[in-house]
Amino acid sequence: MKQDHDLADQDTREAVTSLAKRRGYLWPSFELYGGMRGFYDYGPMGTALKRNIQGLWLRLWVGEEGMIELDSALVNPRPVFEASGHLAEFEDFLVQCADCNANFRADQLLEGLHPNPDALSEEELAGQLEEHGVTCPECGGPISSPTSFNLMFGTRAGPGEGREAYLRPETAQGIFVNFSHLYRLGRERLPFGVAQLGRGFRNEISPRQGIIRLREFNMAEVEAFFHPQKRQWAGDLRKYADTQLTLVPNEGDEIRVTLGEALEKGIMCNEALAYFVGVTTRFLIGVGVDPERLRYRQHLQTEMAHYASDCWDGEAKLSYGWTELVGIADRGDFDLRRHHEHSGQDLRVFVPFPEPVEMEVERLTPVHKELGPRFRGDAKAVAEALMEADASAVGADGMATIPIPEADGKTRLVQVPPECFKLETVVEKRTGEKVLPHVVEPSFGIDRILWTVLEHSFTQRKGEEGEAMTVLKLPPVVAPVTVGVFPLVSKDGLDAIAEEVDGKLRGVGLRTLYDASGSIGRRYARADEAGVPFCITVDHETKEDESVTVRWRDTQDQERLPISHIVTSVKQLAGLD
Amino acid sequence: MKQDHDLADQDTREAVTSLAKRRGYLWPSFELYGGMRGFYDYGPMGTALKRNIQGLWLRLWVGEEGMIELDSALVNPRPVFEASGHLAEFEDFLVQCADCNANFRADQLLEGLHPNPDALSEEELAGQLEEHGVTCPECGGPISSPTSFNLMFGTRAGPGEGREAYLRPETAQGIFVNFSHLYRLGRERLPFGVAQLGRGFRNEISPRQGIIRLREFNMAEVEAFFHPQKRQWAGDLRKYADTQLTLVPNEGDEIRVTLGEALEKGIMCNEALAYFVGVTTRFLIGVGVDPERLRYRQHLQTEMAHYASDCWDGEAKLSYGWTELVGIADRGDFDLRRHHEHSGQDLRVFVPFPEPVEMEVERLTPVHKELGPRFRGDAKAVAEALMEADASAVGADGMATIPIPEADGKTRLVQVPPECFKLETVVEKRTGEKVLPHVVEPSFGIDRILWTVLEHSFTQRKGEEGEAMTVLKLPPVVAPVTVGVFPLVSKDGLDAIAEEVDGKLRGVGLRTLYDASGSIGRRYARADEAGVPFCITVDHETKEDESVTVRWRDTQDQERLPISHIVTSVKQLAGLD
Repeated sequence: MKQDHDLADQDTREAVTSLAKRRGYLWPSFELYGGMRGFYDYGPMGTALKRNIQGLWLRLWVGEEGMIELDSALVNPRPVFEASGHLAEFEDFLVQCADCNANFRADQLLEGLHPNPDALSEEELAGQLEEHGVTCPECGGPISSPTSFNLMFGTRAGPGEGREAYLRPETAQGIFVNFSHLYRLGRERLPFGVAQLGRGFRNEISPRQGIIRLREFNMAEVEAFFHPQKRQWAGDLRKYADTQLTLVPNEGDEIRVTLGEALEKGIMCNEALAYFVGVTTRFLIGVGVDPERLRYRQHLQTEMAHYASDCWDGEAKLSYGWTELVGIADRGDFDLRRHHEHSGQDLRVFVPFPEPVEMEVERLTPVHKELGPRFRGDAKAVAEALMEADASAVGADGMATIPIPEADGKTRLVQVPPECFKLETVVEKRTGEKVLPHVVEPSFGIDRILWTVLEHSFTQRKGEEGEAMTVLKLPPVVAPVTVGVFPLVSKDGLDAIAEEVDGKLRGVGLRTLYDASGSIGRRYARADEAGVPFCITVDHETKEDESVTVRWRDTQDQERLPISHIVTSVKQLAGLD
Repeated sequence: MKQDHDLADQDTREAVTSLAKRRGYLWPSFELYGGMRGFYDYGPMGTALKRNIQGLWLRLWVGEEGMIELDSALVNPRPVFEASGHLAEFEDFLVQCADCNANFRADQLLEGLHPNPDALSEEELAGQLEEHGVTCPECGGPISSPTSFNLMFGTRAGPGEGREAYLRPETAQGIFVNFSHLYRLGRERLPFGVAQLGRGFRNEISPRQGIIRLREFNMAEVEAFFHPQKRQWAGDLRKYADTQLTLVPNEGDEIRVTLGEALEKGIMCNEALAYFVGVTTRFLIGVGVDPERLRYRQHLQTEMAHYASDCWDGEAKLSYGWTELVGIADRGDFDLRRHHEHSGQDLRVFVPFPEPVEMEVERLTPVHKELGPRFRGDAKAVAEALMEADASAVGADGMATIPIPEADGKTRLVQVPPECFKLETVVEKRTGEKVLPHVVEPSFGIDRILWTVLEHSFTQRKGEEGEAMTVLKLPPVVAPVTVGVFPLVSKDGLDAIAEEVDGKLRGVGLRTLYDASGSIGRRYARADEAGVPFCITVDHETKEDESVTVRWRDTQDQERLPISHIVTSVKQLAGLD
């Protein structure tokens, strides 16, 4: 969704970009060598802000929801992405100018000319570019036809030619390829969830918009696994039933409802997905996204990624227009099924019925004289596996696909032709069934969220002489510096007391900013611009009654508090208790 | 330094490897697709343990020492590594078997045949391999001559052919290329330090030894910048003067001394490096490295990396033998000088003298009639820059290298031939000087440290029936789970009380393990193996007096404590207050 940006948006963006660079939040990478588009570095303040945002994310998803964590490799071998579909499908369409050789994403050249250019196929893009007579935006030269360009960074692992490998485009595949380990560690029950923080990579054709579209980015992903017929998370939905949401369903108009109403009215159909929208909203507002500039938009069918059956994007209104921060997608069993098939390992899990059920089943009876010559040493294992299987193992071509155990405890899938078994209907008592779990995935773009927090926290107020003073209203829980500590003057022992207060606060892990230079007014102004929620000033009164002045950034209110309780007070004020 | 490993070592290694996999610390990546050597994934417990280790690292280096943090890009363009020397120097020597095509590191084939094979040059390796008649360890076939193999993972960024780029082999270069930003944010004074946590990559020819030698690994690096003549950190050395150390200097025998003695006796000469050895020791012991199995070994001259002038490795005794966990290297001005020269940007900083100094200096006086025709539009800027420069700008070839300002606020280095200026000696009052800071770098391998913590924490005690019970004695500050919560039985309301206690503890961010299955003895045993330092049991007495039993993992002592103070008690016990 693109919008025209008015001048105020551009002003905000420039002011925030400049503040972010000046105060050490973030800046483009490799400026020393002319830069490389799509890469940004986080400075001291940005690193801390990012960690605090990640910290709240972990607290909600891992601490409260009980997801288990994974930290998997960034470099992955080719088979992972053959299975995931990224080798075939993770691509954009590239056009090149015949005159100046500049490269562009074909869909970006159609912005404003087509309502949804990133949903177009290669042929449709070619047709639209020609129809609109699109030329090179740099030099006006003629452009090539679109060609597909895979967005994964490739590399090779190992000596010599090495092995084909790629930088992961998402953290999710690390979770899927480790599913068996994780299911065991999650105590072998559904639903269960896995959370992962980490870098992802996407070799964008034309990165732009600061840290909104990076080639190297920070993600936070949850893969929650469900019984295919029961998309219900373990948490109590009532917890988020009253959460206010702005929703843009793929049919109908934007609507302001509670999460409970959205479910009742069938605007959202998927309980698990709805619950995760609740947690996501709490997280986003907690880190400083303005609730008035947050909405959830349901994907159009044409817009959905290759694996998704339903998807709601959490979007923030930014100077760049409405921007996706989070995608909450129902991936069904797409990923596990692909890895199940590509690896030949059985990724299904056994789910017991509440009580045993008598049912008619079609069993496979092995025909030993056919199995022997065909499978030789494996014949016994195949016969046993056939007896364990049922008719669902038989495909449309009449072949049975069955898992046989390997020496290392794993399994291998074997194709058994129809002459090797008979189908017989028997009545059996079953205690449960094997299913391939389905997945709902909330996937967060941490860089975009951090940018949103900066933009939405950016405010200005008038100073004493009418000048514009910047106040970065970061919530205390994410602010890189929790408290400023200032001696009114650097003499009369006030600096020694201030240093002691500073040391106390640091000692319990609080981030402080000790500042002794310039007038108190200028120090407050610097702290306001850096987003420091509280400042403590040690003055002459301190020497008399051991109290200090605490000043709030957002209200500029001041209060005197005793030094003896200062650590507790600051922690309480900051909600860090 | 390699040692023969006795059987006990191998037993320990196998027991720890198995426990690490079973309990969700770590396992080889991509097992679903047959694995890829040199890559490991961290499971739920491993991710938490790693984060806690990083947490203490940050608390010491950033919290206490006031280093500022950076989080820079993993994918770097070629010029960064041209400057750093990694393109030319970061290599191993590869030999290949002519029969079976297996690849080996040449130096590894000489282990046991030469005292220090990894210090040998290509020619020396070839000579030694031939002299010892080394053949393929896999099949006995003939091996090729050694060829150099660069250890960086290469990739390409951007559309089409893209730009040559590499995965960073260390986090350090991100700090050096951002030096100007960071120096400004560090308030433009020396010494100051920058800390960075993050992934590094090294395309090992032959990874081995579990997570000791990975292709993708987790690092924690500090680059501390000093005045070239003053390698003194801001912290007070007395803080670490009494720290006990085992030192292996590059001349003389292993010695057990305090850090203060090591400095006095001149075993360590570099005060900053010594201070960092103090902080490092506190960190390593804090996370659970056994002080009896920790030593610092000074590098031999031949062993030093291409950038280092002095280096002490912090080594742990492991089942693999003595293994480097930390390298603390004096890199001098190697890196900044290279980037200064390669980028053409002036990376020197101005250091004021305590008071202005009168000194004879050789000034450069511009010869305008030579400058004009040669530099045209730049002539004026060059003339001004010549007047600012002094004789140190003149190289051995008589050419002056001077920075001239550019439109974007940066500078560009220009070569000025000798006929364009005259050298004159004048007496001037100087307020300071421009220097290129020197660097001392403590560089930590987080994966190796984590492995060490697991091995050194691994103990066994006899159970009631004489069976071996594993107890993982992780220090509470790093243990992934701080406290186990058990209802004695899952009835009589004990489970409800236990869940409430569990919720309270989780509510303040503590990691708990709720376990209601099996006998209390078995639950204690499971918690001991998982490294949980404390367990809380809710029993029938709880309903009478609102107290619970707290049990210590290491002593098995038990004590009753009131529920009302349980959060405070656990935090205090765990030292997390």
